[in-house]
Amino acid sequence: MDLDRILAEIARDAPEAAAGGRVADYIPALGRVPANRFGMAAATLEGQLHRVGDADEGFSIQSVSKLFLLALVLPVVGKALWQRVGREPSGNPFNSLVQLEREQGIPRNPFINAGALVVVDVLLDTFADPLGELLGWLREESGDAAVEVDAEVAQSELDHADRNAALVHFMRSFGSVRNPVDRVLELYCRACAIRMSCAQLARAMLVLANHGVSPVSGRERMSRSRAKRINAVMLTCGTYDAAGEFAFRVGLPCKSGVGGGIVALIPGRLGLCAWSPPLDATGNSAAALAALDSFTTRTGWSVF
Amino acid sequence: MDLDRILAEIARDAPEAAAGGRVADYIPALGRVPANRFGMAAATLEGQLHRVGDADEGFSIQSVSKLFLLALVLPVVGKALWQRVGREPSGNPFNSLVQLEREQGIPRNPFINAGALVVVDVLLDTFADPLGELLGWLREESGDAAVEVDAEVAQSELDHADRNAALVHFMRSFGSVRNPVDRVLELYCRACAIRMSCAQLARAMLVLANHGVSPVSGRERMSRSRAKRINAVMLTCGTYDAAGEFAFRVGLPCKSGVGGGIVALIPGRLGLCAWSPPLDATGNSAAALAALDSFTTRTGWSVF
Amino acid sequence: MDLDRILAEIARDAPEAAAGGRVADYIPALGRVPANRFGMAAATLEGQLHRVGDADEGFSIQSVSKLFLLALVLPVVGKALWQRVGREPSGNPFNSLVQLEREQGIPRNPFINAGALVVVDVLLDTFADPLGELLGWLREESGDAAVEVDAEVAQSELDHADRNAALVHFMRSFGSVRNPVDRVLELYCRACAIRMSCAQLARAMLVLANHGVSPVSGRERMSRSRAKRINAVMLTCGTYDAAGEFAFRVGLPCKSGVGGGIVALIPGRLGLCAWSPPLDATGNSAAALAALDSFTTRTGWSVF
Amino acid sequence: MDLDRILAEIARDAPEAAAGGRVADYIPALGRVPANRFGMAAATLEGQLHRVGDADEGFSIQSVSKLFLLALVLPVVGKALWQRVGREPSGNPFNSLVQLEREQGIPRNPFINAGALVVVDVLLDTFADPLGELLGWLREESGDAAVEVDAEVAQSELDHADRNAALVHFMRSFGSVRNPVDRVLELYCRACAIRMSCAQLARAMLVLANHGVSPVSGRERMSRSRAKRINAVMLTCGTYDAAGEFAFRVGLPCKSGVGGGIVALIPGRLGLCAWSPPLDATGNSAAALAALDSFTTRTGWSVF
Repeated sequence: MDLDRILAEIARDAPEAAAGGRVADYIPALGRVPANRFGMAAATLEGQLHRVGDADEGFSIQSVSKLFLLALVLPVVGKALWQRVGREPSGNPFNSLVQLEREQGIPRNPFINAGALVVVDVLLDTFADPLGELLGWLREESGDAAVEVDAEVAQSELDHADRNAALVHFMRSFGSVRNPVDRVLELYCRACAIRMSCAQLARAMLVLANHGVSPVSGRERMSRSRAKRINAVMLTCGTYDAAGEFAFRVGLPCKSGVGGGIVALIPGRLGLCAWSPPLDATGNSAAALAALDSFTTRTGWSVF
Repeated sequence: MDLDRILAEIARDAPEAAAGGRVADYIPALGRVPANRFGMAAATLEGQLHRVGDADEGFSIQSVSKLFLLALVLPVVGKALWQRVGREPSGNPFNSLVQLEREQGIPRNPFINAGALVVVDVLLDTFADPLGELLGWLREESGDAAVEVDAEVAQSELDHADRNAALVHFMRSFGSVRNPVDRVLELYCRACAIRMSCAQLARAMLVLANHGVSPVSGRERMSRSRAKRINAVMLTCGTYDAAGEFAFRVGLPCKSGVGGGIVALIPGRLGLCAWSPPLDATGNSAAALAALDSFTTRTGWSVF
Repeated sequence: MDLDRILAEIARDAPEAAAGGRVADYIPALGRVPANRFGMAAATLEGQLHRVGDADEGFSIQSVSKLFLLALVLPVVGKALWQRVGREPSGNPFNSLVQLEREQGIPRNPFINAGALVVVDVLLDTFADPLGELLGWLREESGDAAVEVDAEVAQSELDHADRNAALVHFMRSFGSVRNPVDRVLELYCRACAIRMSCAQLARAMLVLANHGVSPVSGRERMSRSRAKRINAVMLTCGTYDAAGEFAFRVGLPCKSGVGGGIVALIPGRLGLCAWSPPLDATGNSAAALAALDSFTTRTGWSVF
Repeated sequence: MDLDRILAEIARDAPEAAAGGRVADYIPALGRVPANRFGMAAATLEGQLHRVGDADEGFSIQSVSKLFLLALVLPVVGKALWQRVGREPSGNPFNSLVQLEREQGIPRNPFINAGALVVVDVLLDTFADPLGELLGWLREESGDAAVEVDAEVAQSELDHADRNAALVHFMRSFGSVRNPVDRVLELYCRACAIRMSCAQLARAMLVLANHGVSPVSGRERMSRSRAKRINAVMLTCGTYDAAGEFAFRVGLPCKSGVGGGIVALIPGRLGLCAWSPPLDATGNSAAALAALDSFTTRTGWSVF
């Protein structure tokens, strides 16, 4: 399989795929990112890295951080986490309060905002320096010690955090978040504001592609069974209200962010990341989705 | 891998798994099925059939029929079907009208009642004798020409069809169902009332396990890509509001019915079916779910 | 108070008030009514009848019939009715299924479609000839023996009854409607298709304006307390999701229909009816609402 | 009409009416109020004050303050207020976020928490010392210069304000609240924590009973038309999701609070207040509702 040729073909089609989308602009720092950027990277278990376009340019990982927050906390806290957050698709826009009200403050899954805020609440009780732990994990697994929070984006997120503040206060009223609102929001916003490239993210996905044992850091980050289960939650819940669409078109566990990045993995084979800032109506990067769709069509690789 | 030994171990644990559940009794004919039945079968692409317990006893396939209705119509109608029914998880109990109202009569996916009723509406416009086509398909793929509708169950379903009649009338008011209400309900209820055994169903799943080409009938029922996509919809939508739970615990495309049967498949390997009448709170067979969970844990096979 | 002068002034402003509205056209017979019709009538307890414009032209009373269905059944069935239908505002579009699902098939009040269908179900168990009883009541109270169902409209309603059929089937699934669906729909559609004029309707409202004792027929139709309570339900629930707006602007118990008619009353004083076919976004006649608003402003009469 | 005798009879029945209820205990200071307190007062336009039981004991007015906040701001801000808050019944529990989300951050009416928080936001932009204005209004209209905020209750409210904080943050995300969250919550909680007696509240209601001109202070607080409209909003929206029940049973504009107080008025006649701490399932005082029901039944006075 000539992955470099496949990536080149995908990159050629990216501008057309991105055409209908809109760059997220709810914070100025995101709105300034050029709409025409496109990058993609595929990291193999054997250590090869295939890349195309702007695959080495850093971008705001945004909700992709929700995956790493989960991967960080689950091996430490274990099953008890599932008492505090569910693992069912939400069937609703990503920041909806409706379902949260009906389900008494227990978020549907760790990949909607409410669920990630609960994960952050748990992290605050688990680690003395949870942001340090997260950055340490990402630096080791991406193989780049320079991974860092973009301070301007983090501040901008905090300045526009009313909706997430509403979620945290609401869940506190049910007792499902326990730490002070400010601490929860600060860690959440900083994690969203981490800056990484496609190449770094593709490498960081290898832990989950390799069933918990990282070929980059050499560490066993979690058990085989736990890695599979995180992959399952990604596939059913990783892309807001478009999880069915992603499973149908891409057929891989994916996690997207409003910065335009989407990470994915092929169990036993590859870590993947595609990036293009313009988003479609469901809040997922239009060209990154098309790129992953095209990748699985051309390679014939999917979990089904 | 000694599948016979694994099935035997699973059968040993089944009574405990079934203990908390409740046999569906909304129609008398279902309520009369003994709660202590358990069967399981695994059919390999190579033609072996492993079975345990009551694997040859027929039961009402109920919503498992939704999978075969889709598999029958999709290759004929093609992509146009997705204009009439979505493919996103519903995030709501299986017969909820709320989402249908919000989404203007377009059901979320073909595996909730509303979606299957649309599929039935399409089938009525596609085949002169849609029930005959369905039975023909199932007889060939199960390798048993005796597969038949249970007439008593079918009549009982029709006598208790108010909620489905409400769905059909409601969708007709949006124009998303077009045939007369009675014809839609009759075909739907007859399909639900088909009687099959675990062994028959496990064999019938091989079309989807083998990417569209049946090793039983020898027919190419659909393209490789279409088979994969049906599997993806099963995984994200096949088990009502427990799709996340199934993906997490079982990690395979599954479709369940209130008769207590659950079918599943391992791409490139196996067709599976487990059966136990008592249902859990989400409407899925408690012991059949536990059996599939145990099967993937013991074999290490999952799509993730 | 010179009511004739006041009605004349109101009629002068009616064309402007009607300008933004849309004539209901979900059935052809309604859509054919000229948009520029306007009539209004005020009947006093003392027997005077003031009228303006097309106050003697018959129109389809539509949901105004819900008021008379309630006034007919409540004195016979008594408090037990409130076990089967609530009396809270719906806070939702008039034919929404959402609330009905959440509240287990008990409609919020007798003035939304679902609630009126339950009232019809009760009427079928109460009278041998419920339509005859209803027409008898209306003929006596309007003082016109010619009040009749418009057969063309009734048939047209029945031909477009999918949404109401959905409601009836849905409520049957909860056990809150018990008669056959066809009988319920037929009586409901015939009642909606009754044809009356503003003058007739204003007179028919005097029973409720006079606390249960009709100055037209001389009959005590219900107790003083029951008449007050029907008026209370009208004020809080009589105008779909605009009950607050009506109370705020008009300050009287009102009941509207998509035929463009709105009936109202001033306790101890008057029966009222205004009619103009074009409806506003909430499904109420724009010019009839403006006419009632203007009437209470000019006379200074309101219940507050 | 011997109002003293009527009040005495009502007081005699109060313990039975209170029996099923539960004293609000979400903040400790409220939970400590003895469940067996009952008081009622009726103030006439002519200056008489009838009272029974604990009618002079102060209690926490809680949501009754929402009425006075509206009465204070509406004459100053005028119609523009209705751009920021609706006047339709909510049809939902009083602190639900669902409707707010569907209606883009515009609360349904000023008597649910979200709506009162918007009124507070407007008050902060209208007066330099809004709490001082409110207390001044209440002191003048109750005829008691000692009316004051209960500082312990106010602090306790602020310590348990997560759900209201969620509402304010959520509305800020829609731009429908503009002041800092802390300032909004502080004024809101202090207003809720005002301590008044039945006698004081009954007198304060005379402004609205007398169409805007207070017989206590002699001031014209608002126009006749505006007073009527506030009364209309009270009747349709003043008692959470039980507005229909109150209109049906009491037939008067009412506003209740979780402190167990309910104020009401008879236009052109009386201001009323009943108080008993135990609440029914809809959050309204069980015995105070029964007292007002009994009062209108015994006097025959209602707006219908």
